[in-house]
Amino acid sequence: MNICTYSYEEYTHLVKSFHGTLAPGLLIGGFIVDLAMKHLPEGKFFDAVCETPVCLPDAVQILTPCTIGNGWLSIVNFGRFAVTLYEKYSGEGVRVYLDTKKLENWPEVRDWYLKKKKKNEQDADLLLTQIKEAGYNLLGVQKVRIDAEKVRRKKMGPVGVCPSCNEAYPLKDGDKCRNCQGETPYSNVESVQDK
Amino acid sequence: MNICTYSYEEYTHLVKSFHGTLAPGLLIGGFIVDLAMKHLPEGKFFDAVCETPVCLPDAVQILTPCTIGNGWLSIVNFGRFAVTLYEKYSGEGVRVYLDTKKLENWPEVRDWYLKKKKKNEQDADLLLTQIKEAGYNLLGVQKVRIDAEKVRRKKMGPVGVCPSCNEAYPLKDGDKCRNCQGETPYSNVESVQDK
Repeated sequence: MNICTYSYEEYTHLVKSFHGTLAPGLLIGGFIVDLAMKHLPEGKFFDAVCETPVCLPDAVQILTPCTIGNGWLSIVNFGRFAVTLYEKYSGEGVRVYLDTKKLENWPEVRDWYLKKKKKNEQDADLLLTQIKEAGYNLLGVQKVRIDAEKVRRKKMGPVGVCPSCNEAYPLKDGDKCRNCQGETPYSNVESVQDK
Repeated sequence: MNICTYSYEEYTHLVKSFHGTLAPGLLIGGFIVDLAMKHLPEGKFFDAVCETPVCLPDAVQILTPCTIGNGWLSIVNFGRFAVTLYEKYSGEGVRVYLDTKKLENWPEVRDWYLKKKKKNEQDADLLLTQIKEAGYNLLGVQKVRIDAEKVRRKKMGPVGVCPSCNEAYPLKDGDKCRNCQGETPYSNVESVQDK
């Protein structure tokens, strides 16, 4: 059983190293990304959409060239456990999702995924075992066309220097940067002398 | 010259492997994250905020335990080239930013960063050389307190099954998932038979 070009064991090591813990969502995410790639035409470039920010984006970042920073991975916050890989010009792609109708054979996965058990009531080993057993059998596949403009990050456009903080910012945001317009999460900002 | 626990060369290899290209923003990002970590109290856990989605989040993901999927990295879309590392309970942290006042000594970096030159007018080798020469000298450091609630992703809360698509979704979103409420980027969704 492979996850893309890795053995399952290798993939679990990558998950621990990148994500920090062997999260159930990353293991299912491995099967999701692998199955999506199996349905893509070979040798095509693709972009990725992840329909939740929780766990799943890391499976995409570990297994594909798409990352948050390079912009090939977009996240939409639908809270659905699904990844779409698509050709960026045509928008044609494949969407793989966790199919709730297929959960009944793996009750520990079902109860974790639908939050029917609190964390301290879950059997972590059984959960990981059932995820590995189930593999692709938890998943559904759809051919989709996606409007990439709706999910991709927007171009930054021209840059100016904010008259308030003196840092560069996108001029499309207005005559000050968004931080200085009042969205700042910071208090007590204090310069540190150069060492 | 090191970037966290890596040599500069090692770091450039990691950048190419994870991000795909040796992007200038990732190189400056390496110095930013490294300098922020040098200003943290030793042995403390921390979360990260990145003030732009462009490039910089990948420097954080390569160099720290914080990723998009594990939730320890948050992105706020201010379009400022800055990273804050903070202790999650107190919100006390350090913010490192690209200081526009320090750009004059490295004109190729200035023209790239402030978008004074089109891509085909830039000298890519000179740009990377100046970034490496400049290192920390382009950066400013601030002690900050951050309101983590303003930047961290919200808890998912109870989960239900969407009556429209039959997929699991966060009930706080309403009586259907956000995709089925009309935010969908998809057209032509077509089920693929199990192989």
